[in-house]
Amino acid sequence: MSLIVHKYGGTSMGSTERIKNVAKRVAKWHRAGFQMVVVPSAMSGETNRLIGLAKEIQAEPDPRELDMLCCTGEQASVALLAMALKAEGLDAIGFSGWQVPIKTDSSYTKARIESIDDTRVKAELNAGKVVIITGFQGIDEAGNQTTLGRGGSDTSAVAIAAAMGAAECLIYTDVDGVYTTDPRVVPEARRMRVVSFEEMLEMASLGSKVLQIRSVEFAGKYRVPTRVLSSLTDPMISLDEEQVSGTLITFEDDEHMEQAVVSGIAFNRDEAKVTIRGVPDKPGVAYQILGQVADANIDVDMIIQNQGSDGTTDFTFTVHRNEFNKTMDLLQNKIQGSVGAREVAGDANVCKVSIVGIGMRSHVGVASLMFKTLSEESINIQMISTSEIKVSVLIDDKYMELAVRALHKAFDLEKVTA
Amino acid sequence: MSLIVHKYGGTSMGSTERIKNVAKRVAKWHRAGFQMVVVPSAMSGETNRLIGLAKEIQAEPDPRELDMLCCTGEQASVALLAMALKAEGLDAIGFSGWQVPIKTDSSYTKARIESIDDTRVKAELNAGKVVIITGFQGIDEAGNQTTLGRGGSDTSAVAIAAAMGAAECLIYTDVDGVYTTDPRVVPEARRMRVVSFEEMLEMASLGSKVLQIRSVEFAGKYRVPTRVLSSLTDPMISLDEEQVSGTLITFEDDEHMEQAVVSGIAFNRDEAKVTIRGVPDKPGVAYQILGQVADANIDVDMIIQNQGSDGTTDFTFTVHRNEFNKTMDLLQNKIQGSVGAREVAGDANVCKVSIVGIGMRSHVGVASLMFKTLSEESINIQMISTSEIKVSVLIDDKYMELAVRALHKAFDLEKVTA
Repeated sequence: MSLIVHKYGGTSMGSTERIKNVAKRVAKWHRAGFQMVVVPSAMSGETNRLIGLAKEIQAEPDPRELDMLCCTGEQASVALLAMALKAEGLDAIGFSGWQVPIKTDSSYTKARIESIDDTRVKAELNAGKVVIITGFQGIDEAGNQTTLGRGGSDTSAVAIAAAMGAAECLIYTDVDGVYTTDPRVVPEARRMRVVSFEEMLEMASLGSKVLQIRSVEFAGKYRVPTRVLSSLTDPMISLDEEQVSGTLITFEDDEHMEQAVVSGIAFNRDEAKVTIRGVPDKPGVAYQILGQVADANIDVDMIIQNQGSDGTTDFTFTVHRNEFNKTMDLLQNKIQGSVGAREVAGDANVCKVSIVGIGMRSHVGVASLMFKTLSEESINIQMISTSEIKVSVLIDDKYMELAVRALHKAFDLEKVTA
Repeated sequence: MSLIVHKYGGTSMGSTERIKNVAKRVAKWHRAGFQMVVVPSAMSGETNRLIGLAKEIQAEPDPRELDMLCCTGEQASVALLAMALKAEGLDAIGFSGWQVPIKTDSSYTKARIESIDDTRVKAELNAGKVVIITGFQGIDEAGNQTTLGRGGSDTSAVAIAAAMGAAECLIYTDVDGVYTTDPRVVPEARRMRVVSFEEMLEMASLGSKVLQIRSVEFAGKYRVPTRVLSSLTDPMISLDEEQVSGTLITFEDDEHMEQAVVSGIAFNRDEAKVTIRGVPDKPGVAYQILGQVADANIDVDMIIQNQGSDGTTDFTFTVHRNEFNKTMDLLQNKIQGSVGAREVAGDANVCKVSIVGIGMRSHVGVASLMFKTLSEESINIQMISTSEIKVSVLIDDKYMELAVRALHKAFDLEKVTA
């Protein structure tokens, strides 16, 4: 009997009525002969409510206790869904991460899964039960509860699917799949029937919020067939090709790979750019600057270095917009003096637009078509960063929609290619 | 260094503002040199909210999943209180029952504590931390979460105090102690400075809702000095006699025992009376009737049997008012036929009024003063039940306040006797 993992997001679990609908869908699958593990998120709004309470008490909530607090949201969802399944006439049992157990490291609020013990879950599945497991959380070596960070339930679901050898992991959400770009920006955006793991990884890292990036990494590492689909519209109750909806993440050698040069366009408004100019150019200076930024727990995204002719060099890098002020402060009051730089500048009104496609590997001229398209719209490119299957540019915030629409059209993404 | 256990009820934990006040009080005690364990309830309203969600999904929620759901309320409280203590500059750590662990049996929604492992808690206390532990819950042999039933946090606190050898267990609530009767009914009701364990046990079982009865049993079994006091008004931060507020539960040989004949008057409106008349009187008939009632999970309180002269007998017993209809149904449609009874009657408009006092043991005439007082008010007594230290009567509901006031006066309870 194949095992299927379903993951339901906060919107799908948003009310008792919706939880009953989730139970109906799970019951259909179970009755169709599948063993089922279900991973629900907290009811929509619950995690924010809990974090709000925490912040009323402590401006920067203690991470261990914050995790202990936030874990309650998913635990409540699990218990309610188990009841809903019983009300549907199925036998069901709910587990918190610590009961499985799902072992993680001790990095509160952003823990990483280390191992999943499948013994108890397997026993319950073999006893004919639907097993419901909290997303988003686990337990560390010392027995403390940990959470995986926002969106962590995706990762839990894929990791559980990997550990249990599931036939497929279905991520039910409030969108019906992965699109060539955000349909709110480009109405012609098209749902991809399949997307390669590598493309999905780039899309997730570039700001497409459909899946948490770590869940994509897990899917790739363990080659878990993972599908993103809508809990509101999907009618499917089998893995039969003809009935499939959503977007399936596939692996390179899969036959269904779309062969488009560019598969999708991702964008991210959460960027801010900082520049430190006139730094005396000697070995170790990059580390002196970026090491201090990392020590302050600031994540850096794009980095470019430009050598001047006067023996100095300029560094430009991007950080999350929320950390712009902190970064500027660090540069102006600490780093500038220590490295003897001439000046520090910053701009929080930037965004990153990226084209992603596994087909790029074997096609030349993709980047140049991107630059030409932007140039025709008179959009100035501030930074460029490339990987084997993506090209990202940093541009002025206000041109974002224009750039995405122009690129979507230039790369023919509105046309079905598979 | 003595160890003190504080327990805070839902009202004391009712908002982030109030949680901060709890933290301030705990911090005061900690700074005064005590090791502190704190047991908070769920925020007021939270458990009802969760049960409400469960009932929207399943009319009779699955007990295991209901416990898993309800456990989240106290877990959130623990985490928030730990943050509040950290915000006060103390080091604190929160544990769920399963983390301690507090081991219970597997009777979901009404589990009993079997053992408490003090290893981890002691280690954290010795490291200078305030330890916060969820009330109301534990973990069974198989690793499932269980709850102790409504009011179970009192029991958790006393059991933890017993297991850890605490000097005193302080139950902070929204009343400032145990009164001779409910002050809302008798304005002259007086707070008792001390109450014997046996009296407290009777008061709790008779419907005084200040403490869950099992917490009183624990206090008695392990002789844990337990004090009920108000988190809103109590200024005390030491165990110094002169500063003490609230009501201390003492044990027989304690010197502070109040020697009043009657210490308090309890009453309970949650009673309903059922009668089955004309039952052919033969051995085993009581079991035939009450056994079937017990099998239906209906708790019976008072029971009387009255033999007639025609070879038949009448049984009257009381049940919780919520189970009145279920009981009548069972009697009329099942038991009446099976035992060949003549008729079944019931009355849900009754209440139980009880006088309680350890002094009764050595005083005659206490019951007769009670009956005389009620008779002078023309209140008809429907049933009587006695124990060594209490007399209970069942009367018409509408006379309850009148009866309690008259008895309070007749036994001179408004006067301080200690």
